Amino acid sequence: MKNTTSKSAILLIHCADQKGIVISVTEFIYKNGGNILYLDQHVDTERQVFFMRIEWDLHDFVIADEKIGEYFETLVAGRFSMNWRLHFSDEVPRMALFVSRLPHCFYDILARYEAGEWKVEIPLIISNHNDMQNAARRLGIDYAYLPISRENRAEQERKQLELLGQYRIDFIVLARYMQILGDVLIGNYPDRIINIHHSFLPAFPGARPYHSAHERGVKIIGATSHYATAELDAGPIIEQDVVRVSHENSIEDMIRKGRDLEKIVLARAVWNHLHHNVLVYQNRTVVFE
Amino acid sequence: MKNTTSKSAILLIHCADQKGIVISVTEFIYKNGGNILYLDQHVDTERQVFFMRIEWDLHDFVIADEKIGEYFETLVAGRFSMNWRLHFSDEVPRMALFVSRLPHCFYDILARYEAGEWKVEIPLIISNHNDMQNAARRLGIDYAYLPISRENRAEQERKQLELLGQYRIDFIVLARYMQILGDVLIGNYPDRIINIHHSFLPAFPGARPYHSAHERGVKIIGATSHYATAELDAGPIIEQDVVRVSHENSIEDMIRKGRDLEKIVLARAVWNHLHHNVLVYQNRTVVFE
Amino acid sequence: MKNTTSKSAILLIHCADQKGIVISVTEFIYKNGGNILYLDQHVDTERQVFFMRIEWDLHDFVIADEKIGEYFETLVAGRFSMNWRLHFSDEVPRMALFVSRLPHCFYDILARYEAGEWKVEIPLIISNHNDMQNAARRLGIDYAYLPISRENRAEQERKQLELLGQYRIDFIVLARYMQILGDVLIGNYPDRIINIHHSFLPAFPGARPYHSAHERGVKIIGATSHYATAELDAGPIIEQDVVRVSHENSIEDMIRKGRDLEKIVLARAVWNHLHHNVLVYQNRTVVFE
Amino acid sequence: MKNTTSKSAILLIHCADQKGIVISVTEFIYKNGGNILYLDQHVDTERQVFFMRIEWDLHDFVIADEKIGEYFETLVAGRFSMNWRLHFSDEVPRMALFVSRLPHCFYDILARYEAGEWKVEIPLIISNHNDMQNAARRLGIDYAYLPISRENRAEQERKQLELLGQYRIDFIVLARYMQILGDVLIGNYPDRIINIHHSFLPAFPGARPYHSAHERGVKIIGATSHYATAELDAGPIIEQDVVRVSHENSIEDMIRKGRDLEKIVLARAVWNHLHHNVLVYQNRTVVFE
Repeated sequence: MKNTTSKSAILLIHCADQKGIVISVTEFIYKNGGNILYLDQHVDTERQVFFMRIEWDLHDFVIADEKIGEYFETLVAGRFSMNWRLHFSDEVPRMALFVSRLPHCFYDILARYEAGEWKVEIPLIISNHNDMQNAARRLGIDYAYLPISRENRAEQERKQLELLGQYRIDFIVLARYMQILGDVLIGNYPDRIINIHHSFLPAFPGARPYHSAHERGVKIIGATSHYATAELDAGPIIEQDVVRVSHENSIEDMIRKGRDLEKIVLARAVWNHLHHNVLVYQNRTVVFE
Repeated sequence: MKNTTSKSAILLIHCADQKGIVISVTEFIYKNGGNILYLDQHVDTERQVFFMRIEWDLHDFVIADEKIGEYFETLVAGRFSMNWRLHFSDEVPRMALFVSRLPHCFYDILARYEAGEWKVEIPLIISNHNDMQNAARRLGIDYAYLPISRENRAEQERKQLELLGQYRIDFIVLARYMQILGDVLIGNYPDRIINIHHSFLPAFPGARPYHSAHERGVKIIGATSHYATAELDAGPIIEQDVVRVSHENSIEDMIRKGRDLEKIVLARAVWNHLHHNVLVYQNRTVVFE
Repeated sequence: MKNTTSKSAILLIHCADQKGIVISVTEFIYKNGGNILYLDQHVDTERQVFFMRIEWDLHDFVIADEKIGEYFETLVAGRFSMNWRLHFSDEVPRMALFVSRLPHCFYDILARYEAGEWKVEIPLIISNHNDMQNAARRLGIDYAYLPISRENRAEQERKQLELLGQYRIDFIVLARYMQILGDVLIGNYPDRIINIHHSFLPAFPGARPYHSAHERGVKIIGATSHYATAELDAGPIIEQDVVRVSHENSIEDMIRKGRDLEKIVLARAVWNHLHHNVLVYQNRTVVFE
Repeated sequence: MKNTTSKSAILLIHCADQKGIVISVTEFIYKNGGNILYLDQHVDTERQVFFMRIEWDLHDFVIADEKIGEYFETLVAGRFSMNWRLHFSDEVPRMALFVSRLPHCFYDILARYEAGEWKVEIPLIISNHNDMQNAARRLGIDYAYLPISRENRAEQERKQLELLGQYRIDFIVLARYMQILGDVLIGNYPDRIINIHHSFLPAFPGARPYHSAHERGVKIIGATSHYATAELDAGPIIEQDVVRVSHENSIEDMIRKGRDLEKIVLARAVWNHLHHNVLVYQNRTVVFE
C-alpha cells in the first residue's frame, strides 16, 4: 500500500455492475488533479455488483475537501446509482469500547492504543462490570459502569445510547462484551459495531462455543470478528482465523489458545475498519487489504 | 517416532482411568523381553477415561505373536476392564476405495499407492459411475461398477457388502463418493469407513458446502475427514485443515482451493488410520501422532 | 474474479510510477469498446514502480486481436515507457515437465492434467531417469530420457534445448528435477521455469533441506516455488507454504509431510503462472490473485 | 492435560536410550503411592537419546517432597546416568523482563500478568531506556534503568547480574530487548533466557529481518522464540509461527503483522517454559505440549 505524508481521500463505492464505471471514477480524480495512490475493484459476478476502493493524493486536487462529495455525486455517482462513502486520511474516528469481565481483548486494544498503533480516539468505555475501571482511569478514558439486569435493561440501553451520542462515537468495539445489545443501538450503528465471537462461525454460534467444540471433537478452533446485526452471531464476517487443537487439549486449553486468537482477529478487523477497507453488501464483506 | 526394521506390536487401549494402568502395561511388555519403542497416553479428565498407544519391538519378546492377545487379556486387560486392539507392524490392511465422478481425491490416493507411500493393499474400487475404470485397470485393481437408483439401492448395497466380504476388506475410503451408504454397511465397518467432507465441520454439513460458505461470506474454508456413522457428516473427526479465501474468490475458486485441501486432509486421516494412531471414544478421536 | 464465456485480453504492465497511468490504460480499453472484467494495480513505493494486471472482454472491442499490442504500444505504453505483456484467455500454453525419480509432484501434475484442472498442453516430459515412462505413455506424452553424467552434461543440455524448441514449449515445470539446469536453458526461458524447492527459502537452500531443518530443530517446515535463475534457489518466489512439525517428527516424517506441501505449493505457482497473475521485477514477484 | 487441585511433581529426564527406562521410572512412582497424571516420552532414534516428562499426584506419595530428588537419583537415575530436573506444581518462578523501546511484547506480557494468565512472579524489569517506567510502576514492579553505551557496557552487565541475583530471578524474558547480552549473563542462565526474534529462523538472523524479508520477496513471514545462547539467533528454538504477506505489503505492513506474531509466539514459549514442557538437548528442544 502506498504511503504518503500528504492528505488523501478514500472513496468506497458499490453499485450494479455497468460498463464505464472504472473510467468514470478515475477520470473524475485524474482530470481534477488527483494522483491515484491505490485502486482496488471487485465484481461479484453472481449478484452483478461492482465494488471499488480508491485512494488519491489531495495535494494538487482542485476540488475542496468539503465539496468532493457533492461533485462526485453530481458528476459520477448519480449516473451509476452508486452507494458511496468518502473518507479522509486525517480523520481520527472515535471508538467506544464495550467490555464485561474477560480482559484479554480489552487489554490488547488498550495496549495498541497506548502504543499508538491505531489512528483512533477512545473517549469512552462502557461496561456492565466495575473490573476494568483502573485500566480506563490510567489512560484517561471515561468509564460508564452500567450493570444490566432483566429489570433495568431498557433503561441502561437508553443510557448507552445517550452516552454514545454525547461522546460523538463513530463506531463500537465489543471486546468480549457478554450482553446482547439493544435493537435500537444496533439499528443506529449499522456496520459500525465490531464484535468478536469465540468460534469459527457459522460453527458454534451462541454461548460456550469452546465447550461445544470440545464436545464435537474438532481438530481446529477459530475466532470470528463480524459486524453486529439484529440476529445474534449472524452479521457480516470481517475476519477469521484458526488454531490447531488436539485430543490433549482440555476445554481450558482451548479457552487459553482461543484468547490469543480472539485478540488478534478482533484487532485485524478493527484495523481494516479504521483504514476504510471494509464494504458490506448483503450480509457479506468485501475487505480490500 | 522410532523406526525399527524388526517387527513390532502396537496396542491401543482405553478404559476407565485407574491407578496402576501404565505400570501394569509397561511391566507386561518389559518383563517379557519387549523393548518399548513408543508410548503415548492421554487421560480425558472430564469423562475419566484413560487412552494409550504403546508400541514395542518383538525381537526378544518371549510370548508368541498369536498368543499376545490372550496373555494380555488374562494378565492385564481383564483386571482393568480394558478395551484394546492389537496390531503388528507387518500387517498390510486391505482398503476398498469408493468413488463417484470427482477424481482429485481418487487420483491422489492412487498416486500414493503407486509410489508406495502407504503400506496398504487396494484390491477393490466400487463406483456408481464408469469414469474411473481406466485408472483402476492400469493399476490392476478390480472395479465394481454399481450404479445407484432409487429402485436398485437395496440390491446394490447388498452387492457392495458381498464384494467387501469377498475381497476381505479391512477398511473403506470414500474418495468423494456422492452416495449415502447403507446402514448395514456402516454398521459392519464401525470406525473403519473414512469419509472426506468438503467443509470445516460442524459448519456446512450436507450438500453444496462451498456454496453455503460463499453465501455466508466466510474468510476461511475447510475440509474434514471423519469416520462415517449412521448420522450424516456427524461421525468422529480424524483430521481437519483450512485455507484462506477472500471476497475475490468465486464459488469456483473455493472449489478449486478446496480440492487440494480435501486430498491432503483425507490422506492424513488415512495415514493415521493405517498407522493405528486413531482411537475412537464417544464420537471423538484420540489421534496419537 | 469475473467469469466470462467470451474471449478476454489480459495485459500485464510495469513501469516507473507516474501520474495518469491508470486513466490512460482504462481509457484505451473503454473508448475502444472493451468491458473491464478485472483490474488490479500496485505501486512499489520504495522503488517507485507501478504494476498492473487488467483483463477485459473482447466481445465489443473494436481493435482486432492481432493489432492490440501495436495499438497499445503506440497509444499508451510508449508514452510511459511501459514493459508489458499481452495474453488472450483462449491461449493454451505448452508446458514441458522435468522430473527425476521422486514421483509425488509429477503424479500430482499429471492427475490435474488428466482431470482437466488446468488449461495447458503437456506435450513433453524430460527426465534423467527412465522411471516415469509408463505414466507418460498412458497419457500420450512424449518422454525424452536424457541421463546426465559429468561427461555428457553439455551434450544433453543441447538436446534439451532442441527438444524444447521442437515442441514449441512456452514454459517449464521442474517437478523435483534433481539436476542443475544449464545456463543457456535458464537464459532462454526467463521467468518461465518454475521450480519447487523443499524448504522455506531463504532458509535451507541447496541439498537436503529436511536434514538441515531437522538438525536446526525448527518447529515449522516449508516449501517454496520460484522461477529458476542462474543462482541456485535464489530466483523470484511465486508461492510458499508451511506445515508444523515437532520433536516427534523424524527426518522421514518431515519428508512425508513435505511431499504434500511441495505438490500444493508447486501447483499454486503453476496455476498463477497459467492465469498470467505473476509479474517479476527485480527478483521479486507481484502475484495478482 | 490432566488437571488436579492437589500438588503434583514433574520430572524431566533425558539419557542414552536403554531398555527398562519407562518401567523403572513408572515403578518408582507407582510403588511409592504416586498417581501418574501425565506421561510423555520420546526417543531421538538418530542420536539414541531418550526423553521423558512425567507428572504425578503427590497426595498419597510416601516420599517427602524434599527427598524425592535424592531417592530418584539413588534408586533410578544413577543406574541409567540420567539428566533430570524435578519441579513441583506449586512453584511460582520469578521472571525478569528485559525491554528496550518497542512496547508490544512487553505490554502483552504485562497484560497476561495482570490478568493472572500465568503462574509467575515478575519482580524486576530491566531496560536500557526509560520509556516503560510508568507501566512497571502501576503494576508495582521494580524498574532498573540501565542505559548501555560502548563505554559502560561491562559495568552495566555487572549491575544486571547483581540485580538478577538480588531478586532471585529464575528465568529471563527478552521482550524485544535490542542489546546483545553479556556472555557471563548468558552463561549463568542456560536454557533460561527466552528471546523473540522477528523472523522465521534460520532465515534472516541479525538486524532488520523484515527489511530483508521484503527485499527477498518472501510470501510468508515468521517469528521465532528461542533460548539465548552465546551465538546470536542460533539458540534452541522453542516456538515458531508465520503469517502470510503479499506484494501489497510494505515493510511497515510486515512490521505491523509481525508485531502480533511476535507477541503470540513469545507468549507460547513462555507458557511452555513455565509448565516445564521444554527439554533442551544438543541445541534443539523437545516440547511436550
